[in-house]
Amino acid sequence: MIKAGVIGATGYAGAELVRILLGHPEVELAALGSQSFEGKSISEVYPAYYKLCDLVCEDNAAVIDKCDVVFAALPHGLSEPLAYQCIHHGKAFIDLGADFRLESEEEYRRWYGKEYERPALHKEAVYGLPELFREDIKGKRLVANPGCYPTSAALGLYPALKKGLVETDAIIIDSKSGTTGSGRGLSQTTHFPDCNEAFSPYKIAAHRHTPEIEQTLMKAAGKRLRVTFVPHLLPINRGIVSTMYARLKLGVTEEKVRDVYETFYYESPFVRVLPAGKPANLKNVRYTNLCDISLHVDPRTANLIVVSAIDNMVKGAAGQAVQNMNIIFDLPEETGLHLVPPAF
Amino acid sequence: MIKAGVIGATGYAGAELVRILLGHPEVELAALGSQSFEGKSISEVYPAYYKLCDLVCEDNAAVIDKCDVVFAALPHGLSEPLAYQCIHHGKAFIDLGADFRLESEEEYRRWYGKEYERPALHKEAVYGLPELFREDIKGKRLVANPGCYPTSAALGLYPALKKGLVETDAIIIDSKSGTTGSGRGLSQTTHFPDCNEAFSPYKIAAHRHTPEIEQTLMKAAGKRLRVTFVPHLLPINRGIVSTMYARLKLGVTEEKVRDVYETFYYESPFVRVLPAGKPANLKNVRYTNLCDISLHVDPRTANLIVVSAIDNMVKGAAGQAVQNMNIIFDLPEETGLHLVPPAF
Amino acid sequence: MIKAGVIGATGYAGAELVRILLGHPEVELAALGSQSFEGKSISEVYPAYYKLCDLVCEDNAAVIDKCDVVFAALPHGLSEPLAYQCIHHGKAFIDLGADFRLESEEEYRRWYGKEYERPALHKEAVYGLPELFREDIKGKRLVANPGCYPTSAALGLYPALKKGLVETDAIIIDSKSGTTGSGRGLSQTTHFPDCNEAFSPYKIAAHRHTPEIEQTLMKAAGKRLRVTFVPHLLPINRGIVSTMYARLKLGVTEEKVRDVYETFYYESPFVRVLPAGKPANLKNVRYTNLCDISLHVDPRTANLIVVSAIDNMVKGAAGQAVQNMNIIFDLPEETGLHLVPPAF
Amino acid sequence: MIKAGVIGATGYAGAELVRILLGHPEVELAALGSQSFEGKSISEVYPAYYKLCDLVCEDNAAVIDKCDVVFAALPHGLSEPLAYQCIHHGKAFIDLGADFRLESEEEYRRWYGKEYERPALHKEAVYGLPELFREDIKGKRLVANPGCYPTSAALGLYPALKKGLVETDAIIIDSKSGTTGSGRGLSQTTHFPDCNEAFSPYKIAAHRHTPEIEQTLMKAAGKRLRVTFVPHLLPINRGIVSTMYARLKLGVTEEKVRDVYETFYYESPFVRVLPAGKPANLKNVRYTNLCDISLHVDPRTANLIVVSAIDNMVKGAAGQAVQNMNIIFDLPEETGLHLVPPAF
Repeated sequence: MIKAGVIGATGYAGAELVRILLGHPEVELAALGSQSFEGKSISEVYPAYYKLCDLVCEDNAAVIDKCDVVFAALPHGLSEPLAYQCIHHGKAFIDLGADFRLESEEEYRRWYGKEYERPALHKEAVYGLPELFREDIKGKRLVANPGCYPTSAALGLYPALKKGLVETDAIIIDSKSGTTGSGRGLSQTTHFPDCNEAFSPYKIAAHRHTPEIEQTLMKAAGKRLRVTFVPHLLPINRGIVSTMYARLKLGVTEEKVRDVYETFYYESPFVRVLPAGKPANLKNVRYTNLCDISLHVDPRTANLIVVSAIDNMVKGAAGQAVQNMNIIFDLPEETGLHLVPPAF
Repeated sequence: MIKAGVIGATGYAGAELVRILLGHPEVELAALGSQSFEGKSISEVYPAYYKLCDLVCEDNAAVIDKCDVVFAALPHGLSEPLAYQCIHHGKAFIDLGADFRLESEEEYRRWYGKEYERPALHKEAVYGLPELFREDIKGKRLVANPGCYPTSAALGLYPALKKGLVETDAIIIDSKSGTTGSGRGLSQTTHFPDCNEAFSPYKIAAHRHTPEIEQTLMKAAGKRLRVTFVPHLLPINRGIVSTMYARLKLGVTEEKVRDVYETFYYESPFVRVLPAGKPANLKNVRYTNLCDISLHVDPRTANLIVVSAIDNMVKGAAGQAVQNMNIIFDLPEETGLHLVPPAF
Repeated sequence: MIKAGVIGATGYAGAELVRILLGHPEVELAALGSQSFEGKSISEVYPAYYKLCDLVCEDNAAVIDKCDVVFAALPHGLSEPLAYQCIHHGKAFIDLGADFRLESEEEYRRWYGKEYERPALHKEAVYGLPELFREDIKGKRLVANPGCYPTSAALGLYPALKKGLVETDAIIIDSKSGTTGSGRGLSQTTHFPDCNEAFSPYKIAAHRHTPEIEQTLMKAAGKRLRVTFVPHLLPINRGIVSTMYARLKLGVTEEKVRDVYETFYYESPFVRVLPAGKPANLKNVRYTNLCDISLHVDPRTANLIVVSAIDNMVKGAAGQAVQNMNIIFDLPEETGLHLVPPAF
Repeated sequence: MIKAGVIGATGYAGAELVRILLGHPEVELAALGSQSFEGKSISEVYPAYYKLCDLVCEDNAAVIDKCDVVFAALPHGLSEPLAYQCIHHGKAFIDLGADFRLESEEEYRRWYGKEYERPALHKEAVYGLPELFREDIKGKRLVANPGCYPTSAALGLYPALKKGLVETDAIIIDSKSGTTGSGRGLSQTTHFPDCNEAFSPYKIAAHRHTPEIEQTLMKAAGKRLRVTFVPHLLPINRGIVSTMYARLKLGVTEEKVRDVYETFYYESPFVRVLPAGKPANLKNVRYTNLCDISLHVDPRTANLIVVSAIDNMVKGAAGQAVQNMNIIFDLPEETGLHLVPPAF
């Protein structure tokens, strides 16, 4: 059994890791870390877990000490020193925060307003989007788990760019996310009476996930590109739908596009390329590590429209982190992730 | 007092007309028409109106007979003969359906699969989007009330195209609508357990409102254009947010754009151009005839992003119809429409 | 025109007063008071009001100075000194807080943990539930506006107790309230992802509205009684449904009960006693000052079941306050309150 | 491996059985039956299951033929003949409908308007509420799976009645259920715009689950009793909260009550008796077979208030059916039901 620990366990991503790891057949959930709730049990914070997991939150050092793999779900800037300690003590470290996602320190500085403290450490990190970079992840000990929006965007657009189906100069990503994406922290925006029966975009063309999206898409395209990314807040709990627009190259048909995607994801059990005419709906992937992708062509404008749907807390956070753990511990990628989405 | 009647009164747009007309100081709600509920009172269908309006539904002929102005909220194809009768009997007719919206019979045939039965009648109709065509509406007796999505899109993009701020060849309209847009009729899509905590696009690049949007935007641009239009279903009751993307012409700044919009809508009390940095949210216009517009520039890609928010049942249907009635009856445009949106 | 001011204008009850007073034909909304947002406009806090009401929040003294009537929507304990100032300066004062609701200082001390600072002032206050105490309110200058749950409970049970239809020793009040009842302040309970798709009771048999409910019901019954009151939090914005249980006296039929209620509320336009078989639904009273009441008898157990539905922010707070203002200023009770509930 | 089949697989309870059985380690989901969708795959009806279960729906005879155990989730009246066929062919039959729940044919006739067609068969049926009747279920082949409301009520009140803590003459059960309880069939009540932001009771003191609740509670009390039962429709997808009121016998304290309940459910892993002061919330049991129970005493009225929370589709239907299957197939009761409720 792999001894796993979660630092930042009482945040939403941490709590979701607890839910998933409790059902993982090769994992013993060995320790939970929390600053705000040290000394309290996780089930006092989340009564859903009462009698199913009553582990008491400890400090970070205790978690690292007890575990083979440490998941950290923390605000950016806090993971770097923990990663160093883990690597130093021979533990695997999977970071659900932003510290190791960007390869360019300059971009990190521009969007997050911080320097790297241990630049050498960043060289050891791998960007953990298994469907795209599976081979690179194997054997690594330090994984940067992708952001939720970047997961939805990259899975949706990578094949089209990689196979040269679309132009790179007019990519629009219009994303809609459920409220768990904002985390457990209170805010007026997620106060129920303000959020319910409301809908609007936010951080228009200014969200920190933009450079992360571009970094992956540039790898696909093999050249520099810029996207316009606009996230919106949905008055629901979970899920992201990204509706993405790109100009098709001349002569590319919807069938061709579907064929490329099906081939690309043939060995990726979590990605479901949907049949023609069935738009992706976040309802169908909730509580699972699945990503549904639907493909549509507007023949009147020659635009390709790709719609992807994920659960932001699972494929967009905790589930993908466990998928990464499976890969680096040489387990079958789906271990512990055979989650069936509820139909309602 | 103007005697007003509503045909199709028990559908959602009809019921919303009842709500608004009950508060109109110059209107007497004189008759309601309904095929499915003839002989029943409107308050049996909508108990919210109990003791406030218990009018009994009649047949269409009775409604036309009793009224000076007839609003029709019917599926497409059913308004044409009613319009003829109204005009023939000297009544004003405001059609909330699609029969008179498109100027091109060819487009109507292509998207709605029907011919015009009385082509001459269509010449007398005016497209009733007052903020854009106020002067044309005055003095008319037959008004085609715009669709909900077209209202949100046209109000959002018209000034930019009219004033040449953006290119016309890469316009994307990503719209999200509450469920009342689908009407009172039952469907699996709007069955609560299927619709709640769900989100997806539908009729991707194939919605019937597309040619109506293009018709108005072409008037603004003064030339042929095509848009990619993708509607989504929001699990809320009311409201449309349209997020619209177009490439800015060289040198156009966000300040310039805002200046153009504020000038354009200066005399339109229902349109609120929002201050910089405040994205439009459908919450702030619910139950009113307002349209909020926010303007954003992505400096990295030179895209203009326009966000518009309306209540699909009011500015997108019943409220705009009453606004049109005010204009053709020479009343101040806001009469009966001084509705304050609830803050929550 | 009556000059009206709102102290605590940026809380939910205050903001709802703004919405209602803006539409009142005999009122000029003259000043708004807020501690937290002094110097900011109300529309910065509630963008729904942008361009409709951009009054800047002032301190309390300025509000009292400018107005004929002051509404205060404040946490308990803060209204007493304001009431004194208003009365002293000849202004009417309508308190939406709890300071003047309980006639017994002992009960106030027990449930709110505070003494009266100006006991004499309490003698001048009237409990402003117009349907029950209309005559007492006339001519008063200091009104204690009832709590939301007490309004729903008292309107539902008063006639049955007054007319001796039910026993007094087994009254159960099971209430369910939308989230605006908790106010604008942030809490984990009303954090969207925690509140949405959740439902539970709270403050079981321990809510501060209990003595207020009992005070009114004892007036009806003419004797001491105790109720079991259990409130629940509904994941919706507005509205309270109270389902109330009491043992019918021998031989009392449902028809008899309905007859008593219809007679009792005959001259109360805001109370709608529903036809047999139509349960009260909060949907039908939202955004209005209405109270719907449905009456049901369980013949198997001889229990009377009364269901009442109100909008907690209107009949349960701001609307009732305006109704009280109308009474003390000798206006028709419905002035400014002809609000039609939206059907959806 | 047990070969399991589901008849009525495309209804909500059937679809939930599919979700749970797919994760059951001792079960092979062998066949699905559906009249309305015969020849279509379950994943065409529920795209959530795409690529996870694409079984094609067959007719009932085929399902019975292929399986060791047949679950039927059908409207009342349709299970009796299927049960006969299954028993006749040596298959186990677990009925999620109402046909075998009531022991009294007279009560069945009164509430369901039907006679028994095979009275002898009813003698072989057992009422499958394992926490109360575990020993009776062992070795049976025909199980009447309890209704959702009766499960929530019986688990909540049985111990108090069995141990004589409360009087039997004033029991009130005020239940609130999510919309999946109404099933997949369309209705105006569950049409999204009508259901959302709405709340009301229905079938007040007239719901068919009433005699089923009383049947179980009479077993506990050892004498005849009647309850007042009022269900309400919550605008959420899943879950039931029942708030139950009964008069405590003299001298019974909250501690005594909690002690009785903890002892009673000591060996029932799915029932969680909550710590003092923590009200049961349906959020904490969603998607699982858990039942949370909280216990409260109103010292002012000497009422016991029991709150129970279940997922109506799991403990109230499909999960409990699988629990019953485990018992009759001599598997550990929790097999395949180790479901962790999501915290949000």
